[in-house]
Amino acid sequence: MNDRLEGFDSIFYPKSHAVIGASADLSKFGGRYLRVLLGFGYPGKVFPVNPKESEILELKAYPSVTDIPEEVDFATISVPAPAVPQVVEDCLAKGVKAAQILTSGFREMSAEGEKLEMAISNTAAKGIRVVGPNCFGVYCPAGGVTILPGGDLPKESGPVAFISQSGGYGIRVPRRAYGWGIRFSKVISYGNACDVNECDLLEYLGQDEETRIITAYLEGVKDGPRFFQLLKEISRVKPVILFKGGLTQGGARAVNSHTGSLGGQEEVWNAVFKQTNAIRANNLEELLDTMLAFMHLEPKPERKVCAMGGGGAITVTAADICDRLGVSLPLFSKEMEKKLLPNIPAVGASARNPVDMGSPGPPPHMVKAVMETVLGDGVVNTIIIDEIESAASNPDGPMAKLLIETKEKFDTPIIIVLPVEAVALEFLERESNRRKSRDYYLSEGIPVFLTLDRAVRALANLDNYYQRREALSSPA
Amino acid sequence: MNDRLEGFDSIFYPKSHAVIGASADLSKFGGRYLRVLLGFGYPGKVFPVNPKESEILELKAYPSVTDIPEEVDFATISVPAPAVPQVVEDCLAKGVKAAQILTSGFREMSAEGEKLEMAISNTAAKGIRVVGPNCFGVYCPAGGVTILPGGDLPKESGPVAFISQSGGYGIRVPRRAYGWGIRFSKVISYGNACDVNECDLLEYLGQDEETRIITAYLEGVKDGPRFFQLLKEISRVKPVILFKGGLTQGGARAVNSHTGSLGGQEEVWNAVFKQTNAIRANNLEELLDTMLAFMHLEPKPERKVCAMGGGGAITVTAADICDRLGVSLPLFSKEMEKKLLPNIPAVGASARNPVDMGSPGPPPHMVKAVMETVLGDGVVNTIIIDEIESAASNPDGPMAKLLIETKEKFDTPIIIVLPVEAVALEFLERESNRRKSRDYYLSEGIPVFLTLDRAVRALANLDNYYQRREALSSPA
Repeated sequence: MNDRLEGFDSIFYPKSHAVIGASADLSKFGGRYLRVLLGFGYPGKVFPVNPKESEILELKAYPSVTDIPEEVDFATISVPAPAVPQVVEDCLAKGVKAAQILTSGFREMSAEGEKLEMAISNTAAKGIRVVGPNCFGVYCPAGGVTILPGGDLPKESGPVAFISQSGGYGIRVPRRAYGWGIRFSKVISYGNACDVNECDLLEYLGQDEETRIITAYLEGVKDGPRFFQLLKEISRVKPVILFKGGLTQGGARAVNSHTGSLGGQEEVWNAVFKQTNAIRANNLEELLDTMLAFMHLEPKPERKVCAMGGGGAITVTAADICDRLGVSLPLFSKEMEKKLLPNIPAVGASARNPVDMGSPGPPPHMVKAVMETVLGDGVVNTIIIDEIESAASNPDGPMAKLLIETKEKFDTPIIIVLPVEAVALEFLERESNRRKSRDYYLSEGIPVFLTLDRAVRALANLDNYYQRREALSSPA
Repeated sequence: MNDRLEGFDSIFYPKSHAVIGASADLSKFGGRYLRVLLGFGYPGKVFPVNPKESEILELKAYPSVTDIPEEVDFATISVPAPAVPQVVEDCLAKGVKAAQILTSGFREMSAEGEKLEMAISNTAAKGIRVVGPNCFGVYCPAGGVTILPGGDLPKESGPVAFISQSGGYGIRVPRRAYGWGIRFSKVISYGNACDVNECDLLEYLGQDEETRIITAYLEGVKDGPRFFQLLKEISRVKPVILFKGGLTQGGARAVNSHTGSLGGQEEVWNAVFKQTNAIRANNLEELLDTMLAFMHLEPKPERKVCAMGGGGAITVTAADICDRLGVSLPLFSKEMEKKLLPNIPAVGASARNPVDMGSPGPPPHMVKAVMETVLGDGVVNTIIIDEIESAASNPDGPMAKLLIETKEKFDTPIIIVLPVEAVALEFLERESNRRKSRDYYLSEGIPVFLTLDRAVRALANLDNYYQRREALSSPA
């Protein structure tokens, strides 16, 4: 293991844990963190540190980390900014391997804060890894630790890691992803990166066996050349999906108030994406959608999609979207059209690709016949079910079963688009059924998206990644 | 009134209504249409026509339209395609002013169907207006008529008209828009346009006093020069928002199976949008969002937005989006920043624009102080509240009241972004609260969008429209 990665296991799987600035007062970050950590079921020993208390939440409290009589592997620090450098010194003296600093008010705020932060960096260089300051910490369910305020995050691990320069997204992304069945190996809000930075995290996750898909929200990068090199190397073995904030001039200005990094330079980033094969997500939605695609879909040497919808405009829209995003909808032969025609309504439908099933609620036997015909023939190898109402209305109904059976029978990916169609307050039960159906599909390895546009974008991101990886790895 | 528009009032406000092909059998379109029309509360006389029945749904049935002893203003036709031309002849003979043909299987299907359709066009030219064939008909709440299968559409009218070449979107758009509080003056699914076409409808709606905002989903256009001229003229007085399907090659192919029109030619359409000042919606979501913006927001000679969010990444993302879409977030002066600083948290926040309120749930008094400071100073004239949790969690809470009071007090637009944050099944109650909050804002004239990206796109569409309208109307 690289020197830069020493101490990282203590961040994610701490054997024991000091909470410095712990308090019974939940209005304080240190108070909230202690409560959340205990509630999350952290399995190691926890040592609250607070000079004014002898006991917090039924745990013995210590005046300083150096007063703790046992070994301390990891520390969470939440004391006022001016006190942080000394606390980090104390941790180093105590032999703590790594720490996370939740406190804000450093480089992102003032020149004085920047000095404090430099002092911390200097201490870190002497032998303690530091995450933060100005961060929400680390979530690693296998290590029993969670990010602030993520006491509600699942205890179950998953294949996705998320590196976030933003604390807000550090909690928002796993929370929102939860409803889509996306589970995480690690989430790291790393804030100002006075020691552990995006490069270190990328390198660690590149080697991490728990992580199959790396994702990140970044504002700035400390060491451009190293970052570029790592992105390129890791992208050869694992997908790295990046949402880069602050690419515009206005965004770069906001980045400066947020994490004190330099954003901007959109052209540079365009080149980075192109040359490293990192996957670009243009917003939070695309980041989540692309995670979902990589979780459930395998690469195909040649993607050939059949899109099925009910209604002409749906299929016109589908054709436009696939064409724009470079996803192939093969033209069906006249023979194929002839085979399909008896299986769709005689009027108001179309046996071309996309297949127009004539109405938003086609009977399952028709959908089955069309899927079996096109898959049996091998003319396509992926099915998109686009806004077919019966796929959303009843998770126990015949349509849901049929889709799952077809996926198994042909060992072929099926992608489902289930929009929130009934957005009025009085239709909450329909939304409940939609969510039940979605969860059923997800549990069977079928990704579900909110719009066709988002589904096809995620699919295109996946296919482009694997195609370019293949091209980059073959001898020129 | 133009000759081309004769008989149009009979389409939207029919004094009496024959349903030809009516049936008690709900599996038939004619059966469903009759049921829906009666259920919708159509106020005029209804005459079912079916040679095999003497009474349908307690109404006397007639063998043919010509057997009806009273005047018939409008007819809905749902008989097999080969029988349609004679039925239209009969309607003309009876003096019916206008008809809609729900039946499919014409030009969009076969050469034979095309011949039948030409026969209908010829009859129409003799003095009866025909909507369709291959359509779902017309919804006009003020006239008591509804589109198929729109028995559930609201009876309340609104300022938006929607012209749809697609029957599917003809019903989907008003249904989905319903939950966003968007109400319609007229929705027309006009199908193959054998007589009444998109130009006629555009011209009619341009003059229609019930219609303030014209919107359309189009695949092809029959008379390019007339369409162009109308778009240009009407855009001078009312916004016309177009979602054009089939712009790509693949989409154009699908258009041909759907409505038998010619799609494609993206460059041509780019020029049409530019030269006419019609507003382009790139998908169904943008169409709905832009309707919402035009419903609730007034033009500003110079839009100056303050975006407020909780968390650095939210504000970085907001700055990127506004920069990309050309929406101005004015830089605050040092004095303004000084005035704002006491009203936001001392650390982890930012008094620049976008304003970072430090956390996703800032207390209402801070939000109030920031809004009053920036609005009172006049440095901005529009507020965007971006994903502030307390704005969504409680429609009766202080944050909701505060936002509405501020809008009134400063007579300034407020735009709210309320994402569906808790997408898991078990969080349905949070979604219920979100919908309640949204409905409250909408009822007070505050538009609510699902993402900031969608909000800013809709705002940019509105501002670009009015700015260009101003520029086009001033002497060069």
